[in-house]
Amino acid sequence: MRLGAIEAGGTKFVCGIGDETGQVSEQLRIPTTTPAVTLAAVVDFFQEHPVDAIGIGSFGPIGVNPQHRDFGYITQTPKAGWENVNFLGYMRTHLNIPIYWTTDVNVAAYGEYRLGAAKNVENLVYFTVGTGIGAGVIYQGHFLQGFNHLEAGHIFVNHRPDDDFAGVCPYHGDCLEGLASGPALEQRFGQPAQALAANPVVWELEADYIAQACVNYTLSYSPDRIVIGGGVMHQEQLFPLIRQAFKSQLAGYTTTPELNSYIQRIALNDDAGLTGCLLLAKDLIDSGQTVGA
Amino acid sequence: MRLGAIEAGGTKFVCGIGDETGQVSEQLRIPTTTPAVTLAAVVDFFQEHPVDAIGIGSFGPIGVNPQHRDFGYITQTPKAGWENVNFLGYMRTHLNIPIYWTTDVNVAAYGEYRLGAAKNVENLVYFTVGTGIGAGVIYQGHFLQGFNHLEAGHIFVNHRPDDDFAGVCPYHGDCLEGLASGPALEQRFGQPAQALAANPVVWELEADYIAQACVNYTLSYSPDRIVIGGGVMHQEQLFPLIRQAFKSQLAGYTTTPELNSYIQRIALNDDAGLTGCLLLAKDLIDSGQTVGA
Ligand SMILES: Nc1ncnc2c1ncn2[C@@H]1O[C@H](COP(=O)(O)OP(=O)(O)O)[C@@H](O)[C@H]1O
Ligand SMILES: Nc1ncnc2c1ncn2[C@@H]1O[C@H](COP(=O)(O)OP(=O)(O)O)[C@@H](O)[C@H]1O
Ligand SMILES: [Zn+2]
Ligand SMILES: [Zn+2]
Repeated sequence: MRLGAIEAGGTKFVCGIGDETGQVSEQLRIPTTTPAVTLAAVVDFFQEHPVDAIGIGSFGPIGVNPQHRDFGYITQTPKAGWENVNFLGYMRTHLNIPIYWTTDVNVAAYGEYRLGAAKNVENLVYFTVGTGIGAGVIYQGHFLQGFNHLEAGHIFVNHRPDDDFAGVCPYHGDCLEGLASGPALEQRFGQPAQALAANPVVWELEADYIAQACVNYTLSYSPDRIVIGGGVMHQEQLFPLIRQAFKSQLAGYTTTPELNSYIQRIALNDDAGLTGCLLLAKDLIDSGQTVGA
Repeated sequence: MRLGAIEAGGTKFVCGIGDETGQVSEQLRIPTTTPAVTLAAVVDFFQEHPVDAIGIGSFGPIGVNPQHRDFGYITQTPKAGWENVNFLGYMRTHLNIPIYWTTDVNVAAYGEYRLGAAKNVENLVYFTVGTGIGAGVIYQGHFLQGFNHLEAGHIFVNHRPDDDFAGVCPYHGDCLEGLASGPALEQRFGQPAQALAANPVVWELEADYIAQACVNYTLSYSPDRIVIGGGVMHQEQLFPLIRQAFKSQLAGYTTTPELNSYIQRIALNDDAGLTGCLLLAKDLIDSGQTVGA
């Protein structure tokens, strides 16, 4: 079975061909320019490399609720030219195969859920701390979503009184993303996050906010595992600090699996997204549907 | 069909008899003393008033995961004498009928979902602001839960810099419950919440925290509706303040249904819990199972 994957990002699209084991055999990177040019290049690729189904993980926000008019669209994105673009509709017009449609963070979550750091668990919270903070929740095998997809990277947490940084989120200022994303570290401490590796003050503060996110997700979903990815999490010293802060913040209020397994680093790294797309494409074929979300 | 309901609280148990429309025809209040005495009185009531199934909504924390040893138990409650009590097991030993088992907040959520302020919606967040703050989420008709039941009344929110109150949560200090429950208002302002009705400073601050909870729930679940109950919400002037603060805090980051329908007051009031128990008992019979959670 030949399956297709599209990881649609704000700077590049990655198209992949692979199989139902999640192995990618071929890929193409396409710069994200205008929808007309970029989407046409994606269609060209899959016309030259026919597949039985495609999984798409797109930057957003996107419409994932089949009952809404914006289903299949990239909606109010700040990315110039991409607002209200019917991405899924364009693909379905040009490629007559089943297509699964979800967010970029969800496809990576699904890769980790099936083949990475969360295989063998039922309920997963996955989040990524990079340029932004994005979260995806898999509940009993399916993405948790409702009126819209989740945006749980922007929850409010307790802005520490000893942290007078205002936060970088253009919408909320000091939401989680505003306080703890890579750009928040860079603006607060004056250097890119990777250059701050040796400063323990940085990682104690960062671990506090990420732990608060883990506490809120624990209380809100009671998952079996929390997997964290994204550029900032290359600082592996964060993990013990996060687990320690999590334990002290949660204060025994509810139980979780043992913390070394409960809070883990991503295992598939850069492959999580494409792998997730391939497996979602396969699931869609198995479901007998032509479109999924 | 005769159905039973048990609302098990820390000060009293309310047992009810009713039918599949959720109408209660008879009830008995039993003070919460020791498990031996209180649970025996509950069993006596249902032996004198036989029913086809019972729904239980219990104070907690309780074990709701059938894969855990504490399933059916009241677990680490601070209520003296009630820790590690096998409530469901006791009922099943003495009453040979199907029994549905969940939290006190979940049964009220279910009552509102089926017959109250959230009928006709698919996904509901319900929370109650009283002595504590408890939340229940109904996702596609079922309670959202995982390793344990949710405890989303204790999430962290942004403790306002102009609010120097330390918070009353014995576990977390200034979590949502610690900052915005009835006792938090009473300790912060020196009078019981109902006596503060005329002070606008109180309700502006309270609305800010409740709105932050609504923002976090919106970003974390994207529900169709948020219904709020509990003693503090008798202050109906809170609702417009909450909607206004919610709008400004969310800052358009995701869309929701129109706010007057999205954020609503509970409709069934004190009946929500017993009604929910009866309907859950009926659903359990329909499912053909003897125990549900
Ligand atoms: N080794 C590192 N240590 C700490 N921060 C890093 C590291 N590598 C990248 N980052 C930070 O991660 C952010 C980029 O996140 P990344 O997940 O790589 O990309 P994106 O979120 O744009 O997909 C930047 O803010 C960068 O400073
Ligand atoms: N009319 C009211 N206005 C404001 N606060 C109230 C009102 N009635 C009760 N409360 C507060 O609600 C809390 C009790 O919550 P309630 O939901 O009635 O009970 P419980 O949470 O114990 O089941 C107390 O802190 C009380 O001060
Ligand atoms: Zn934000
Ligand atoms: Zn708390």
